[in-house]
Amino acid sequence: MKKFKIEKSKTDRINLLETFDNSFPSRNYLIVHTANEFTSVCPKTGQPDFGIITISYVAAKKCVELKSLKYYLQSFRNEGIFYENVVNRILDDLVQCLNPKWIEVKGEFSLRGGLQSTIIASHGKK
Amino acid sequence: MKKFKIEKSKTDRINLLETFDNSFPSRNYLIVHTANEFTSVCPKTGQPDFGIITISYVAAKKCVELKSLKYYLQSFRNEGIFYENVVNRILDDLVQCLNPKWIEVKGEFSLRGGLQSTIIASHGKK
Amino acid sequence: MKKFKIEKSKTDRINLLETFDNSFPSRNYLIVHTANEFTSVCPKTGQPDFGIITISYVAAKKCVELKSLKYYLQSFRNEGIFYENVVNRILDDLVQCLNPKWIEVKGEFSLRGGLQSTIIASHGKK
Amino acid sequence: MKKFKIEKSKTDRINLLETFDNSFPSRNYLIVHTANEFTSVCPKTGQPDFGIITISYVAAKKCVELKSLKYYLQSFRNEGIFYENVVNRILDDLVQCLNPKWIEVKGEFSLRGGLQSTIIASHGKK
Amino acid sequence: MKKFKIEKSKTDRINLLETFDNSFPSRNYLIVHTANEFTSVCPKTGQPDFGIITISYVAAKKCVELKSLKYYLQSFRNEGIFYENVVNRILDDLVQCLNPKWIEVKGEFSLRGGLQSTIIASHGKK
Amino acid sequence: MKKFKIEKSKTDRINLLETFDNSFPSRNYLIVHTANEFTSVCPKTGQPDFGIITISYVAAKKCVELKSLKYYLQSFRNEGIFYENVVNRILDDLVQCLNPKWIEVKGEFSLRGGLQSTIIASHGKK
Amino acid sequence: MKKFKIEKSKTDRINLLETFDNSFPSRNYLIVHTANEFTSVCPKTGQPDFGIITISYVAAKKCVELKSLKYYLQSFRNEGIFYENVVNRILDDLVQCLNPKWIEVKGEFSLRGGLQSTIIASHGKK
Amino acid sequence: MKKFKIEKSKTDRINLLETFDNSFPSRNYLIVHTANEFTSVCPKTGQPDFGIITISYVAAKKCVELKSLKYYLQSFRNEGIFYENVVNRILDDLVQCLNPKWIEVKGEFSLRGGLQSTIIASHGKK
Amino acid sequence: MKKFKIEKSKTDRINLLETFDNSFPSRNYLIVHTANEFTSVCPKTGQPDFGIITISYVAAKKCVELKSLKYYLQSFRNEGIFYENVVNRILDDLVQCLNPKWIEVKGEFSLRGGLQSTIIASHGKK
Amino acid sequence: MKKFKIEKSKTDRINLLETFDNSFPSRNYLIVHTANEFTSVCPKTGQPDFGIITISYVAAKKCVELKSLKYYLQSFRNEGIFYENVVNRILDDLVQCLNPKWIEVKGEFSLRGGLQSTIIASHGKK
Repeated sequence: MKKFKIEKSKTDRINLLETFDNSFPSRNYLIVHTANEFTSVCPKTGQPDFGIITISYVAAKKCVELKSLKYYLQSFRNEGIFYENVVNRILDDLVQCLNPKWIEVKGEFSLRGGLQSTIIASHGKK
Repeated sequence: MKKFKIEKSKTDRINLLETFDNSFPSRNYLIVHTANEFTSVCPKTGQPDFGIITISYVAAKKCVELKSLKYYLQSFRNEGIFYENVVNRILDDLVQCLNPKWIEVKGEFSLRGGLQSTIIASHGKK
Repeated sequence: MKKFKIEKSKTDRINLLETFDNSFPSRNYLIVHTANEFTSVCPKTGQPDFGIITISYVAAKKCVELKSLKYYLQSFRNEGIFYENVVNRILDDLVQCLNPKWIEVKGEFSLRGGLQSTIIASHGKK
Repeated sequence: MKKFKIEKSKTDRINLLETFDNSFPSRNYLIVHTANEFTSVCPKTGQPDFGIITISYVAAKKCVELKSLKYYLQSFRNEGIFYENVVNRILDDLVQCLNPKWIEVKGEFSLRGGLQSTIIASHGKK
Repeated sequence: MKKFKIEKSKTDRINLLETFDNSFPSRNYLIVHTANEFTSVCPKTGQPDFGIITISYVAAKKCVELKSLKYYLQSFRNEGIFYENVVNRILDDLVQCLNPKWIEVKGEFSLRGGLQSTIIASHGKK
Repeated sequence: MKKFKIEKSKTDRINLLETFDNSFPSRNYLIVHTANEFTSVCPKTGQPDFGIITISYVAAKKCVELKSLKYYLQSFRNEGIFYENVVNRILDDLVQCLNPKWIEVKGEFSLRGGLQSTIIASHGKK
Repeated sequence: MKKFKIEKSKTDRINLLETFDNSFPSRNYLIVHTANEFTSVCPKTGQPDFGIITISYVAAKKCVELKSLKYYLQSFRNEGIFYENVVNRILDDLVQCLNPKWIEVKGEFSLRGGLQSTIIASHGKK
Repeated sequence: MKKFKIEKSKTDRINLLETFDNSFPSRNYLIVHTANEFTSVCPKTGQPDFGIITISYVAAKKCVELKSLKYYLQSFRNEGIFYENVVNRILDDLVQCLNPKWIEVKGEFSLRGGLQSTIIASHGKK
Repeated sequence: MKKFKIEKSKTDRINLLETFDNSFPSRNYLIVHTANEFTSVCPKTGQPDFGIITISYVAAKKCVELKSLKYYLQSFRNEGIFYENVVNRILDDLVQCLNPKWIEVKGEFSLRGGLQSTIIASHGKK
Repeated sequence: MKKFKIEKSKTDRINLLETFDNSFPSRNYLIVHTANEFTSVCPKTGQPDFGIITISYVAAKKCVELKSLKYYLQSFRNEGIFYENVVNRILDDLVQCLNPKWIEVKGEFSLRGGLQSTIIASHGKK
């Protein structure tokens, strides 16, 4: 009972993301969403991980809808996944969905054994 | 009674803004106004939104008068409007009014469902 | 257009509050709810006021339901009311609704003209 | 897929707690454990809740073992349970397990809809 | 020109204070007003002093009106007066005006020559 | 009595500034003076304004003497002057006095009606 | 190589503590020493623990010499010992050495697996 | 040259303290002076010590004059003296000078070898 | 007994480091690991040193495994080594192990005799 | 007795500085030492000055030894010297001693008469 039953990777997670049309497509402006309550599970130890995910992007034609983004991030809750993969997969999914001019995903994960880790990945030119 | 009667968009809001002549038009200096008490209503949920609006600009011939800026920002209080539109409309109105050399509008909105959003849009070259 | 159309006092506001049964009525434990986004209107100047309302109580038979508390506090949004009355009326309504063993309502209102005000009222013995 | 499959209440959760003998039973000293990464699920909305649980106690004959306490708190991860019940059940389980001279459990839960809640319950005389 | 022309003590300053009736005279509740922008002049050096004045009281029949309190505190701006006297005179004036059940005046003055001073005086029983 | 008798602009204020020779004229080094207790009067409302003035410069042949700078800044105490003018006039006076290689004056003024303003002006190339 | 070779408990550690005569034995005054760099080893996992030890006491005839206290606390560096025992043993040693009127030892240990622990033990009446 | 020439204890230091009459002798009010720039020399190592001295008192007939207090505290600058003695001697000198109803002296000394020390001594009943 | 038995430099320390394959080798993303509990011993005084080590890198083919990094950093615990060498040796070992596109190692060491030291070394182009 | 006997400038102060060989001369890495307890005397008023001195440099062949740096900085303790000269003389001495690739000295001096001053001087190209 001590370990969580870790779920397998959800390849259809991207379907949770919804978008709406960018009303100001000709202006390059910055959108930043910070999710303070991200949690997943370490695939090695079966222990829960916690972190802050910050998504910054310059929209092209589409913006991500906030409620769907919340559900998308919650879908990692019981999945076993490494820090580096969390950040890079979120980046890949959002690039596929939004095709933004520029996007950066940052994950700041909580202290484990005296070590705190941050991963930052981006796509496109700012 | 639980939902606010959301007001329609005010197209004449720009008339609330008053200006005064820039006394140092030949010098490029920075003016920053931060409004800590911005509030509007979410058009989707009918729930109030709260945020901090920061307006930074380099004036050309005109500066925005502070009291009129306060009334202008208060006019969003009961209007249903999305975050992205709040920031871009304030930017559009101030550009039309002041025709500044450079201007940036930033909106930092309060936590909703574990997500905090910031929108930054600008006009002109700094 | 510069002043808000101030609403009259809502005497039926208390009907917005819903309660649920306290599952641990024999234990005196403390419940604290802090609302960071309270806003009302100054009846004298017609200007919006902002504040933080903190409600602390020891329940008897009933607890206040959180969503209904949110709607109750939002109902002050366009009402003209003084600081002292905000705090004392919330206290009176919650006493009538919950009949708690002890309750305290604190309102910390935002800076006006260089003055910050806090009002604290309580009912019952802690 | 948007809602978590909420687990039913685990009545055997208490079996996860392990204890060790207090080496200084004749001295009344304070032990405080703070868990920054508590999470459960709201039984009403199916949305995850997050919080900080602080357990303070004066041991009698037994102390709670830290690793078992971690597993015990993690067992709430996918269970639907209200704030008030989280705090009072942890208190009940620890009282049954440790029979301490005094114990207090505090739960500080994260912001929901502009409202932050804290619940504090205790047992015995300090 | 380097020294301020220090004004003599204003014995009629108390006339600036206005009051309104306490709507909840039977309840002992706390009112706190904090003025962050107090300034007066040191009678010895002719140099400006700055400080934060905090007024806490439990009203009897009358409350002090906020705008009049602001004007009252501003009236010290160019007066030469020692820290101890600032606090005790404000206390005396408010006691005479409000006759409160309890009142405390605190002055926290800014650093001078590496020394920071705070004066706290009260009247009545809390 | 409620309004301050606002003084007219002092055109001879610059005479308060004293300088001393820069001992290291061949080295471009930065000097920063921050005055936390600046106060003037709003020419529109007659109400006192408060702010922090930060002066940063790279000296050429002369440095500003600190005590004279204090007296210079104090001379604004009872003068009616707008934020933008405070910063630009201090800049003009110091440029005239010091003829520095580069200088920047920043004024961060205190909250008024929920709006905080900062003005930054500079002269020369850094 | 991954685990530290844990040292056995040093029963003669108390000999490291040196004292000097209290020059003001008739006055009950408080002495507080805070050691920010305490480290020992977990006897279960062989992993290093870190913490802040705060020693507060009212001296009788003797005070603890600071340099000897530093060496005494450093002697735990490679010893395997539980949190509860660290605090209670330091308390026992200091009581034996100083025979103070009152003494309290607090250990605030660093985050392990999402749990932060604090232990507070005292001897005598304050 | 590496060690300071430590001065011997100044028994006539108390003569530096000047007093003025308490204008409100019938009211028990609190006066607090905090000196952030206290420095003396360690008599053992010859190294400079730094600290914050906080003097709190309820005056009887006399108050300590601030400038003289500054000179009094500066007189420790090159004297070799232990922490405990700094605090107790300042207390003794102020008691002799002011004969206050109550007085407390606190010394918070800076980190030495990972240890931070605070000494608090008082005289009279608060 | 007062001095630690300082261990000689471990030339085989690098064997403690384990790596895993970078899953996104074609993307330049940043990985940051911060170790808050680094400790070693000063080779001159035999006294323990404490610090925060921050490792930032852009991986090529390999990433460092977190648990092995923890053991690697712990291996300095009883070794006598200067600050500058701590940072440069960690950098050399990680370069040899990971051959990253860019890497920076920062060591922020705790206060010693009123002096705090930070060392930052990097390898490769960011 | 009220003024310190100000010492004359020590031209031989540089002899206090000791160096050791840079073990990594081919790598350009940054070394930062921050001294929180700098004190000297104002040559004009005879009053003590306090500040924080931050020395950042990229070593060539030599590094400054920490203990000697502490003694060097302590040698200013009773010398009368202006802020600008403190920073530029430390810079000159360290350049002469270390001949570094790049060096910057920053002095942040404590508040005097409401003015805080910072001086930053550098030598070489970063």
